[in-house]
Amino acid sequence: MSREVAEPTDLSERTPEKPVEDLEDMALREDYALAPEFVAMVMDAADRGDSERLRELLDALRPEDVADLMGFLSPDYREVAIAHLNPESLADILSELDTDIREEILAFVPHDTLARALGEMESDDAADVADDLEEDKRAQVLAAMDESDRVAIETSLAYEDETAGRLMQREVVAAPQFWTVGQTIDHLRRDRDDLPELFFDVYVVDPANRPVGALAVSQLLRARPSTPLAQVMEPVTEIPVDMDQEEVAYIFDKYHLISAPVVESGGRLVGQITVDDIVGVIQEESDEDILALAGVSDAGRDAGILGIVRSRLPWLVLNLLTASVAVSVIGAFQGEITKLVTLAILMPIVASLGGNAGTQTLAVAVRALANRELNAANATRIIRRELAVGLSNGAVLAAVMSGAVFLWFHDPRLSLTVALALVINVFIASVAGILAPLALERLGRDPAVSSSIFVTFVTDFMGFLAFLGLAALIVT
Amino acid sequence: MSREVAEPTDLSERTPEKPVEDLEDMALREDYALAPEFVAMVMDAADRGDSERLRELLDALRPEDVADLMGFLSPDYREVAIAHLNPESLADILSELDTDIREEILAFVPHDTLARALGEMESDDAADVADDLEEDKRAQVLAAMDESDRVAIETSLAYEDETAGRLMQREVVAAPQFWTVGQTIDHLRRDRDDLPELFFDVYVVDPANRPVGALAVSQLLRARPSTPLAQVMEPVTEIPVDMDQEEVAYIFDKYHLISAPVVESGGRLVGQITVDDIVGVIQEESDEDILALAGVSDAGRDAGILGIVRSRLPWLVLNLLTASVAVSVIGAFQGEITKLVTLAILMPIVASLGGNAGTQTLAVAVRALANRELNAANATRIIRRELAVGLSNGAVLAAVMSGAVFLWFHDPRLSLTVALALVINVFIASVAGILAPLALERLGRDPAVSSSIFVTFVTDFMGFLAFLGLAALIVT
Repeated sequence: MSREVAEPTDLSERTPEKPVEDLEDMALREDYALAPEFVAMVMDAADRGDSERLRELLDALRPEDVADLMGFLSPDYREVAIAHLNPESLADILSELDTDIREEILAFVPHDTLARALGEMESDDAADVADDLEEDKRAQVLAAMDESDRVAIETSLAYEDETAGRLMQREVVAAPQFWTVGQTIDHLRRDRDDLPELFFDVYVVDPANRPVGALAVSQLLRARPSTPLAQVMEPVTEIPVDMDQEEVAYIFDKYHLISAPVVESGGRLVGQITVDDIVGVIQEESDEDILALAGVSDAGRDAGILGIVRSRLPWLVLNLLTASVAVSVIGAFQGEITKLVTLAILMPIVASLGGNAGTQTLAVAVRALANRELNAANATRIIRRELAVGLSNGAVLAAVMSGAVFLWFHDPRLSLTVALALVINVFIASVAGILAPLALERLGRDPAVSSSIFVTFVTDFMGFLAFLGLAALIVT
Repeated sequence: MSREVAEPTDLSERTPEKPVEDLEDMALREDYALAPEFVAMVMDAADRGDSERLRELLDALRPEDVADLMGFLSPDYREVAIAHLNPESLADILSELDTDIREEILAFVPHDTLARALGEMESDDAADVADDLEEDKRAQVLAAMDESDRVAIETSLAYEDETAGRLMQREVVAAPQFWTVGQTIDHLRRDRDDLPELFFDVYVVDPANRPVGALAVSQLLRARPSTPLAQVMEPVTEIPVDMDQEEVAYIFDKYHLISAPVVESGGRLVGQITVDDIVGVIQEESDEDILALAGVSDAGRDAGILGIVRSRLPWLVLNLLTASVAVSVIGAFQGEITKLVTLAILMPIVASLGGNAGTQTLAVAVRALANRELNAANATRIIRRELAVGLSNGAVLAAVMSGAVFLWFHDPRLSLTVALALVINVFIASVAGILAPLALERLGRDPAVSSSIFVTFVTDFMGFLAFLGLAALIVT
């Protein structure tokens, strides 16, 4: 199977008995993930101290795959591999690395090597890397760079993290609105060395450098040279420089954008965002939602054990506190449990089913909010629907479980208690599952964070209270 | 705030006292989500039967926003709105709609209108829509279409759902490898009417129509006309036509692709996938993971109550079964609970903390698997790390909770029992949380589906067993 169809131009220089194509094929599985066998070969070469082999293996990988490899290696192997990397490719690899691993690697790469690497990167990627440097080292690296590259990085770092300003690259292609298609093409040909490496749209600007339209490069190519830009340009969707990256991603997704101009508050063009950066943002934001719902604060792929403990323990301690409050309800019904120990057996089921029903509603609501499919326009309808679903599910579960309880314990009053408690708790779970994220969103907080601990608390508390309270009234 | 900077060319035709720009501004919130007030205006116009106003409101929206509007409206309003839609814009809107809503709308649009709309869409979008049609109606619609459009749709539908074949569009721009840059540009200009509306790469092909390289349009534009394509082309990443869309998305994300050629098993170019389609896939796949982890099978945004119940109830019933098995452990320790009812109070905390710790590990593992950051190359290292984290978190929680229990009940043996049970259960939660998704992945199953119900079962069961079993040995 051959993935990179174009022959590398320097193929003739390689030793004929070990064709490079073979290593390239071995490096990746069919799904383009790094093959475990290849990672093992790298570790083996490192163990044997076989530098030549190690270089050969690294050369067979694309930069993205080298970055991937770093994630699969332990820190010791990583240091060996980095030492064998072709210095030119460092720039390509740095922008692909996860933050944790990058910080570790940046710590031991000399500052002049870094200055050279950053100079070769696009301004957004370079700023990302610079942001991960220790303050002292960052100052050294920036001091060793060209003025224009340094200014680009400093400007980018001045924007807040996770905003359009940080995501954007300052390199754009703009043309005045009075130009024709032909003039624009001539200009691009003449200035070819000053253009961004890749671009997808030419932005048409007014004399104050405000975007008034855009033209895809493919449209430019096939339009008649004499056509004025103003006649063929399409409307543009401008991105304010301080917009949150999650909103930028939403706009790109919604309008199927490939690139968009970024503007200052006055409307002046200051950069562009391209869709390939957005793909990463979407992955990142979804990952954050999944982890937040599961009670994990952000911890990178390669955080140490302490980092991971720190990202999870606070939620567990919080859960310990809420669970303690919830079980205090049980304490109030000790007498009933002593009289009828069956209550202790059944109560966790009522709490657990409520918890699960609440989590379902919550997950659906959090995604709907993230996708902007739920707001004041339809909140009432969606809430009503969730409550109806909660009642239906509660009723079915109550029927099934009260039947099972009757067959097991032959106690119709216990059956009735379980049934009522289940209907109540699954209904309340739905209420909490939809209202908690809506309330957090209204308060300007991330609905994925802390909703789930609240829902779990409510369903535990109400599960115990409804079941034991009803049992006290009906059964014992 | 003006979003669409280019003036609509037909502005002069509109009534001057209600400038269209105002409505456009009102339609969207600052974050480009549809404004609730605008949705209310649409419903109000529909209530009053004011067709002119309704048309005006709909005209102020881009197709993507009309599709969004449909999601916010209830089915009755939706039918009214669709009836007032400009027929030409139907094609644009259909490809943006969620499946549930689309099916509903397709049911009442006449088949010849649909045939015309599908003819205007790109082949991948048209096939998507055709797939949602009832079989009879699909035959009618296809029969009313041009032969070439019909064949394109039928070919697309012949590929399995959620594969590259379905995602791709058949319209590509290809050039033989012996052409120069200038020849290619001339060809594009000459054949401008046969080209896809937008394209980002020209694929360079060999005489058997197999891609051997690619050239971004922006590169084409600035290369010297006399340069042979073979000299400036870049390697391409080929996508096999039967590749799962999740893998396609992974490859686009990893290599920052804008477009990629899709090839048949013999390597022949059959279409291309562009990144704007991939952005939707990434959203979809992450949403699926979040919902699967929460125990929700796929149910669209606008499923009815019955559809939603069907997407959630099976998981709740399964949870009822596993919970019943887990609590049967409690049944075996009824004697202990009767002797010391405090056990009934504390046991849910042990189970709940285990469940939460397991969910954390699980969420992290599921995302790592989805991002191809976890495989045989580093599984041992990651498992070892998760177990260490589990032991650490368990130890801290045990210390906190046994202290609290001692202060509350003044029973050192009860304190010890709680501490040991917590360490055991949080540790087992970590084992289950990492091994369950790895095992499912190894078996070729989706690790997000059914992992969480298994982890919850294990932590409930072990929580009760460890705590009550130790209590039987140590306390009572």
